[in-house]
Amino acid sequence: MPTKTAMVLLIGDELLSGRTTDKNLPVIAQKLGEKGIAVIEARVLPDNADVIVDTLRAWSPRVDYVLTTGGIGPTHDDITASCVAQAVDRPFVRHAGAEAALRAYYKPEDLNEARLSMADMPQGADLIPNPVTGAPGFFINNIFVMAGVPSIMGAMLDFVVDHLTPGAVIHSQTLATTLMEGEMAHALSAVQDQYPDVKIGSYPHFQGNKRGVSLVLRATDPHRLNQAAAALESTLNALTAAQ
Amino acid sequence: MPTKTAMVLLIGDELLSGRTTDKNLPVIAQKLGEKGIAVIEARVLPDNADVIVDTLRAWSPRVDYVLTTGGIGPTHDDITASCVAQAVDRPFVRHAGAEAALRAYYKPEDLNEARLSMADMPQGADLIPNPVTGAPGFFINNIFVMAGVPSIMGAMLDFVVDHLTPGAVIHSQTLATTLMEGEMAHALSAVQDQYPDVKIGSYPHFQGNKRGVSLVLRATDPHRLNQAAAALESTLNALTAAQ
Repeated sequence: MPTKTAMVLLIGDELLSGRTTDKNLPVIAQKLGEKGIAVIEARVLPDNADVIVDTLRAWSPRVDYVLTTGGIGPTHDDITASCVAQAVDRPFVRHAGAEAALRAYYKPEDLNEARLSMADMPQGADLIPNPVTGAPGFFINNIFVMAGVPSIMGAMLDFVVDHLTPGAVIHSQTLATTLMEGEMAHALSAVQDQYPDVKIGSYPHFQGNKRGVSLVLRATDPHRLNQAAAALESTLNALTAAQ
Repeated sequence: MPTKTAMVLLIGDELLSGRTTDKNLPVIAQKLGEKGIAVIEARVLPDNADVIVDTLRAWSPRVDYVLTTGGIGPTHDDITASCVAQAVDRPFVRHAGAEAALRAYYKPEDLNEARLSMADMPQGADLIPNPVTGAPGFFINNIFVMAGVPSIMGAMLDFVVDHLTPGAVIHSQTLATTLMEGEMAHALSAVQDQYPDVKIGSYPHFQGNKRGVSLVLRATDPHRLNQAAAALESTLNALTAAQ
C-alpha cells in the first residue's frame, strides 16, 4: 500500500493581504499524515474564480484528494462552492439536504436568501456536517470543501478524515541536538545517503542565545526508520564527544 | 502607477507535514502591501528540486517579484539556492562576498565546507545581508531568496523591501459589526456593486458565544475607499437599528 497524496487549497484574500494567519494547513497536514495521506503541496489562493477553477482542474486528477478551506459563507466574496461546480462541470444547484440542515439550524424568520445560498452546491455533492454554525461543507469526486474559520474547519476535518481511504502511514522520529547544522551537515548527508528511503530534515531554531536543531526522520518502514535513527544518534554522539 | 505583484514560495517539507506552522507569509504580505506590492498567490512547496525549479520558471515572468523562504542552510535538505540557479539558467558558484561574510562571522576553525557551501549561489546574484546568523540570502533577476527561520527572514525582509520598486498602495479600512454575515449579505453585495473598485471582504469570527464580523474594504483610491466605507457604515447602522 503506497502513501496517498493530497493537495490543500487555502482560499481567501485575507490570507494574501497579511490580515489573517492560516492555522488550518498544519492541522490538516497532521491529521492526513496520521492516515497515510501526504500533503504534497499547498496553495494560498485569492478570491478569484479563474484561479480557483484552474487550480482545481489541474490538481484533482494529479492527487488522491484535494481539500479546500474558506469561501463558503453567505457573502459576495464566498465563491468556492460555485468554483468547484465549474471545475467538475456540474450545475450549481440547491442541495436539499443542505437546505434542510440550514432550516434545522436557523429560526424560519432568520433564514433569508443569503443564508439559503449556502445550500447551493455542485449537483451530486455529498454533505460535510457543520456542528458549529449549521451550514455544511461538501465533497464531490475527490474534492473536499471546508470552512475557513479554524473551529469549524476542525470539526469538518474529523468527518472528512473518516471518509478518506488510508495510505501507508509515514512514521517519524525526532532527534534534538545542540550541535549546529554546519557542524553535522557532512555526517548528516552520510546517514541520508545510507538510508535513501528515510527522509531526514534538519530544522534549526533560534531563541535568543538558545540554539538547537531538530532532526526529523520520516519513513513508511518503521524498521528502517529505527535503524536510521540509531545510526544518526550514534553519529551525533560521536560528534558531540569530539567537541 | 499600478499596484505591483508578488508571488511567495514557502519552501520546506516541515510546512507540509504539519510539523511547522508558517509565520512568514503574513509578515511578508503586510510589508509588501505597505509598499504597494500585492501578494497574488503563495505556495507551500516540498524540498523537491523539480517542483521548485518549475514553479520559479513559471512565476518569475508573471509577477514583478518572487520571494522565497526556507532551504538555504548548510544541510543536504537545503536546495533552494541551487534550484534558483537552475531556474535562471546560471552556473551555481561560490559568491566571494558571501564567503567573506561567512569568514567574518565564523572562527576560522569552525568554517568547514558545509558552512562555506552557504556561499554557493547563482552567478551574478546580489547579497541579502543576514545580521542574525551570518549566512546571507541573495537576489537575482526578480527572485529574492530568504531564510525560513522567522527571526532571520524578518531581518532579511527589511533589506529586501528597501530594494523593491513601490507600486500603488492599497489602502484599507475595517468596520466591525455584531451583525451576522447572513443578515447583511444582501446589503453588502449592494455596496460592493456600487463600488467595484473597492474590494470588500467579510470575515466572521467565532469565540465561544462572542461572534462578530470584520468587514475589510481595500482600494488604491483613498477617496473612493472613504466613500464606500461611509456607505457601508450607514447601511450597517440602518440594519442594526431595524433589528
